[in-house]
Amino acid sequence: MKTTRLPRPSVERLCTYLRELTRLSAKRMETIRSRELAKRVGVSADQIRRDFWLIGSFGKRGHGYDVEGLRKSVAAAIGLEKEWSFIVVGVGNLGTSVLNYKTLLLRGFKACAAFDKDGAKIGKKVGGVKIQHVSALPRVIASKRPALAVLAVPASAAQETADRLFRLGIKGILNLAPTDIFAPAGTRVRNADMSREIEALAVAVKMTELAR
Amino acid sequence: MKTTRLPRPSVERLCTYLRELTRLSAKRMETIRSRELAKRVGVSADQIRRDFWLIGSFGKRGHGYDVEGLRKSVAAAIGLEKEWSFIVVGVGNLGTSVLNYKTLLLRGFKACAAFDKDGAKIGKKVGGVKIQHVSALPRVIASKRPALAVLAVPASAAQETADRLFRLGIKGILNLAPTDIFAPAGTRVRNADMSREIEALAVAVKMTELAR
Repeated sequence: MKTTRLPRPSVERLCTYLRELTRLSAKRMETIRSRELAKRVGVSADQIRRDFWLIGSFGKRGHGYDVEGLRKSVAAAIGLEKEWSFIVVGVGNLGTSVLNYKTLLLRGFKACAAFDKDGAKIGKKVGGVKIQHVSALPRVIASKRPALAVLAVPASAAQETADRLFRLGIKGILNLAPTDIFAPAGTRVRNADMSREIEALAVAVKMTELAR
Repeated sequence: MKTTRLPRPSVERLCTYLRELTRLSAKRMETIRSRELAKRVGVSADQIRRDFWLIGSFGKRGHGYDVEGLRKSVAAAIGLEKEWSFIVVGVGNLGTSVLNYKTLLLRGFKACAAFDKDGAKIGKKVGGVKIQHVSALPRVIASKRPALAVLAVPASAAQETADRLFRLGIKGILNLAPTDIFAPAGTRVRNADMSREIEALAVAVKMTELAR
């Protein structure tokens, strides 16, 4: 596995290949040619070979790639080979659905703790995780060392909570609050609230209409 | 307002400007210079002026742009000036949080109907919307003509349900099910399930570490 910096477009395509390879591996497919993978993911076979070459994976001429081996190489190259643990901050509707979201665990993401400010929720379990008061954040982060946090608090508390999480050592935040937040250097934020997603969809639909 | 096709990167930036202009307009800011907007959104002032020029909006030298006028022009150019109505298909945890998500309405997206297969849920109201059986889909879509659907069904039912929605006239689907779905020509899908988002975040964190 190469650990040099990969170009961002390659990283995005590698994520897509990984999803397909995981699916194929689960179906016990043993080998795949770049041409076949190309059809499945909508990327050219040349591009696919170049991306795999970047991470040091080569197929055999006339034979293709070993599916499970390739899946492992891709996962390792983009950091998805190990289990990531994350915390959930804010256990309303959205936080609850994150904690109940079984697919996350299948993909290697495990909720290790959940937090809320609402006294009525403290001590209850959601998706097998006990809800703790936000005042326990420093202690829990120091002991469990999660790299990621899913932020599902109200918009008004989002940036302040994010700043606190980063100070406590969180490296990346998936922000589901309906406002954009900013990340200090060396950390990452993914702003993914639903209103942003549906806006982008509506704009795409509108552009499709205009293009006719 | 120009209705020519806009380059995709411009469309994405216009979405970002629109979010900031909406915030500024709500604060009753009257004018803004491209340089100031540039600082707020992290795009160069030159780029901002070019993007606004594309949609036929020009600032006054030494004065800047009229905030509310610009907000309206940008919204119109990318199709976000009107209210979009959408349906929610699948009212589990995630579908429930979409229906309860008040920010969507503020941004011009209104849930006009919700559907589930589970008889125990039919007739209940979530976020002011009554849940109907999926068998009512053809009738409701024909009468309310929503352009968009939020899909929050299990992965196993996602593609089949999406195909059905497109046949019934839906133009765009926000797919929250934990599997990618594909769109026929002339329609749009945005695959936005949480596992994809958290994967992208983890990869970004990993790449940030490698870049050090």
